[in-house]
Amino acid sequence: MRATLMYKAGDVRIEDVPDSIIKHPTDALVRVTASCICGSDLHPYHQMTHENGPARMGHELIGVIEDLGSEVTTLKKGDLVVSPFAISDNVCEFCRESLQTSCIHHEATFLDGIADEGGQAEAIRIPLADGTLVKLPVAEGSALVPSLLTLADVLGTGHHAAKMAGVTPGQRVTVIGDGAVGLMAVLSAKRLGAEQIILMGRHTGRTSLGREFGATDIVAERGEEGIAKVRDLTAGHGAHAVLEAVGHLPAYEQALGVVRPGGVISRVGVPQYENAPIGFGSLFRHNIRLAGGPAPVRAYIEELMPDILDGTIVPGKVFDVETDLDGVPGGYRDMDERRSLKVLVRP
Amino acid sequence: MRATLMYKAGDVRIEDVPDSIIKHPTDALVRVTASCICGSDLHPYHQMTHENGPARMGHELIGVIEDLGSEVTTLKKGDLVVSPFAISDNVCEFCRESLQTSCIHHEATFLDGIADEGGQAEAIRIPLADGTLVKLPVAEGSALVPSLLTLADVLGTGHHAAKMAGVTPGQRVTVIGDGAVGLMAVLSAKRLGAEQIILMGRHTGRTSLGREFGATDIVAERGEEGIAKVRDLTAGHGAHAVLEAVGHLPAYEQALGVVRPGGVISRVGVPQYENAPIGFGSLFRHNIRLAGGPAPVRAYIEELMPDILDGTIVPGKVFDVETDLDGVPGGYRDMDERRSLKVLVRP
Repeated sequence: MRATLMYKAGDVRIEDVPDSIIKHPTDALVRVTASCICGSDLHPYHQMTHENGPARMGHELIGVIEDLGSEVTTLKKGDLVVSPFAISDNVCEFCRESLQTSCIHHEATFLDGIADEGGQAEAIRIPLADGTLVKLPVAEGSALVPSLLTLADVLGTGHHAAKMAGVTPGQRVTVIGDGAVGLMAVLSAKRLGAEQIILMGRHTGRTSLGREFGATDIVAERGEEGIAKVRDLTAGHGAHAVLEAVGHLPAYEQALGVVRPGGVISRVGVPQYENAPIGFGSLFRHNIRLAGGPAPVRAYIEELMPDILDGTIVPGKVFDVETDLDGVPGGYRDMDERRSLKVLVRP
Repeated sequence: MRATLMYKAGDVRIEDVPDSIIKHPTDALVRVTASCICGSDLHPYHQMTHENGPARMGHELIGVIEDLGSEVTTLKKGDLVVSPFAISDNVCEFCRESLQTSCIHHEATFLDGIADEGGQAEAIRIPLADGTLVKLPVAEGSALVPSLLTLADVLGTGHHAAKMAGVTPGQRVTVIGDGAVGLMAVLSAKRLGAEQIILMGRHTGRTSLGREFGATDIVAERGEEGIAKVRDLTAGHGAHAVLEAVGHLPAYEQALGVVRPGGVISRVGVPQYENAPIGFGSLFRHNIRLAGGPAPVRAYIEELMPDILDGTIVPGKVFDVETDLDGVPGGYRDMDERRSLKVLVRP
């Protein structure tokens, strides 16, 4: 079968690899019908050394069950399923608390962590299939597939940002970052009733989509200038909730500048830093809270899917390009150079 | 009148100062009948330079209204009142959200910030009296005065730690620090229904009082050893809520070690650091939240006072020494050398 391999930063190839097969009785073998490239895939695309490659890529996918381990009970061959980016048994103490990204099963891992598997491929072995996969009530060729694919990561991640920030009707929200996750955070804040949604981003194609998703204001400026603009827009006090969808330190510092006393900074951009200001002058003086982390998207699928099925939300609009596997290396390049927002892959 | 002045680290004196008087129409002049020394007073006691002194000291007090500005409407001469450590108008946007420590009135400040006033004195001018002071339904000589005095800071601060951590019935809680605020955090976690309360502290007199307030386990060890003990006591996963009542970086690092995935670190010890770990390996990977700050104790008085009046809680037990003003310099020394837990002052 064919799959995507990253050899080192900037070097992505499509190659023949051994076919994925069932290895454990709780596995499912999924023929991938739709996958995509994630903003977080760009981190290794910038940083991966030759010694750490080649790595199989892709952690978002929809596909058809081709084969099942003997212990899988809730799925059958031919089912169309979506896979969250994190493998979980969905029954442990943490899964039952809707924190599937901290599942304690020994096979639980991020999809990127499964050896010799990846979503940007013709097929994939998914461990803990009963806990992880969710059946979709549409056909493989449904026009809803792009939107349903966002349940695998970006929509659930944007929703997690808004949920962990406790966004409630009437609030002022600032979203930092106009990538796919930032735009999903806008959509999620709108869905939860935010009254004002300020999107900080400077790519007009993206911020236009942000307006469509519910942003009421766009701030293109960064740093002190951007902070001043947001404060102007929020009666001087800042936003109740700041959804940080970038992960770099300047984005966190920007969040500190635009958050309201008593407000919350909710991070879903994977932090590319370890130490940052949290003392008296940053978080403590005005009871600013910090929340967020890898989104337990499995927990949110039942809540979000109905809104996709009935057309209330169309998160699939974040895909501005569609390609087959051969177009994946170019897709990485285009996303890296901001020519594409998010690339949908039909293997 | 006589008052406490700190000249520099380690140098506390009782001296004659000009009488406090009404300056603004919203002021109250309070004759102090009970005050105390706070753990946070020990920070300048360690660090204050000669250039920053002398400073008036004390931000917790009960007293009798001696005089009132012309615009004060809710108090009258002779009322016994308690003063929160933060001055607030109690009507602004933030006060109405129960965040009086972020009151936006131009006279709002921490009590320590009022020029030429302090609680460890015979009298004090309290600005924004209507918003700040709360009338007590007892006589000046009531045996409840020590417990009611904790409403000015330490009880409300411990309660804030538990509240911001979202402590709910059945949870596992770890309290870091066995000072007065840590002990009040224990009492508050118990009051909110925590099932397990692990107190990390190594002064047996204090931890014994902690047990009386509701601690189910005591861990005297610090660092890695202490972390391992707490994890043993919490089925390996750590505590849902960690109440950090110290403020030094090692206490925060200890909190990171004992918090459960999806849990919260709630800080009420004033951070003596600015930068600290909050990246993927510390907070982010397992969705650990960070909360806390200066407690809006004004917001909690109505909720907590009835429990003191009916004897449900006796937070005044944190006072192990009583003195007059002349004993204040010795009180600082005894608290600094851990001979006293908290010193009650009757000026």
